[in-house]
Amino acid sequence: MSSLFHERKSVEQVEEGCELAPKFDALGVIPVVTTDFHTGELLMHAYMNPEALEKTIRTGEAHYWSRSRQCLWHKGATSGLVQKVLDLRIDDDQDTIWMRVEVAGSGASCHVGYRSCFYRSIPLREDAGSSLLFKELEKTFDPIAVYGDAPNPTKL
Amino acid sequence: MSSLFHERKSVEQVEEGCELAPKFDALGVIPVVTTDFHTGELLMHAYMNPEALEKTIRTGEAHYWSRSRQCLWHKGATSGLVQKVLDLRIDDDQDTIWMRVEVAGSGASCHVGYRSCFYRSIPLREDAGSSLLFKELEKTFDPIAVYGDAPNPTKL
Repeated sequence: MSSLFHERKSVEQVEEGCELAPKFDALGVIPVVTTDFHTGELLMHAYMNPEALEKTIRTGEAHYWSRSRQCLWHKGATSGLVQKVLDLRIDDDQDTIWMRVEVAGSGASCHVGYRSCFYRSIPLREDAGSSLLFKELEKTFDPIAVYGDAPNPTKL
Repeated sequence: MSSLFHERKSVEQVEEGCELAPKFDALGVIPVVTTDFHTGELLMHAYMNPEALEKTIRTGEAHYWSRSRQCLWHKGATSGLVQKVLDLRIDDDQDTIWMRVEVAGSGASCHVGYRSCFYRSIPLREDAGSSLLFKELEKTFDPIAVYGDAPNPTKL
């Protein structure tokens, strides 16, 4: 375990204290919520292992653990769309990370080509069951130009 | 499975289509990111099972699956701090939900008493390893007055 992380000793320490004592789950990862620092838009939901969290803290650039590729993932290494971390938060029981970032280049964070991964809205209440609504009408980049024939990470 | 959810047939359908085809994980849940509709602040990171997602869609009020209590959880049923859903999004591969809400009452969403669960910041770069910084200086409510002696959901 990294020297940056403390052992979890009590609920009081974890919830009310000033020691970073993150909880990694049974698979060794912690979920990360990434939002745009300026607009508050949710860009990504991903995971970090201890190494990714330590690299993010030390470099100030977002690193994740890719569950599909099973490797450390410096976001933007392929696409150039590096995420600069302006604020990094941890929640009450220290099992979730919130990262507020500025994205380089076109500002996109989604492998499909949209700015946010969350480009579709689910109709509610009396509209339940209607078609999803697209909230971004145009892609920010062409994923084939950026990623070529790399395998699509989406799994059925 | 709910009549609201479609079978996952292809990457094209899941990423570029208008059918709601959510992916629940091996434990039968999907992660949910809940932000304040007006400020963009991250309030919670939690989970839904199919029933919780369907109830959220049909009622427009946030329902979760409580992993610690193993039951459907209508947020605000105990505290009165109901979350009204103003926008519900799903991501590219449909394995994460983003919920933008307005919170009733005091506006708090955290069982420790703060407005957001993410009330502490992790120092970065040359400050790596320093103490966590509190970003909310006062609690919004007294958790003992609201929850009494109900067991604390935080696990070590």
